[in-house]
Amino acid sequence: MRASGAKEILARNIKLLRGQRGWSQEVLAFEAGLHRTFVAHVERGARNISLTNIERIALALEVSVSRLFEE
Amino acid sequence: MRASGAKEILARNIKLLRGQRGWSQEVLAFEAGLHRTFVAHVERGARNISLTNIERIALALEVSVSRLFEE
Repeated sequence: MRASGAKEILARNIKLLRGQRGWSQEVLAFEAGLHRTFVAHVERGARNISLTNIERIALALEVSVSRLFEE
Repeated sequence: MRASGAKEILARNIKLLRGQRGWSQEVLAFEAGLHRTFVAHVERGARNISLTNIERIALALEVSVSRLFEE
């Protein structure tokens, strides 16, 4: 797994799961208690996100944290 | 999954995988390029660890990030 693999995997899975729910980044941000621009950065793999915020996104999408990192 | 579930799951899996390799916290910290006390805090679920450091630990243990969050 390349050094920055996890950020890309997370970005791809969040985009996929958000899209499956028909949610905008704004809706996901609201559901997760985060700012929309923060979600946008995470989806570009441009943020060294903390575990607490990863978990907020997982809870909002109703998936496990493990699922967010499935390749 | 309780709000702080991910920290406990991560702590449990790191301890398990580290133990399977017969590594001390010091060896894992060295392999991951982290400080021993940092690894000790993560294994106590006492650190809101960032994705970059999660990935360092995953690479050191030669497992996927997803594996570190399996329940």
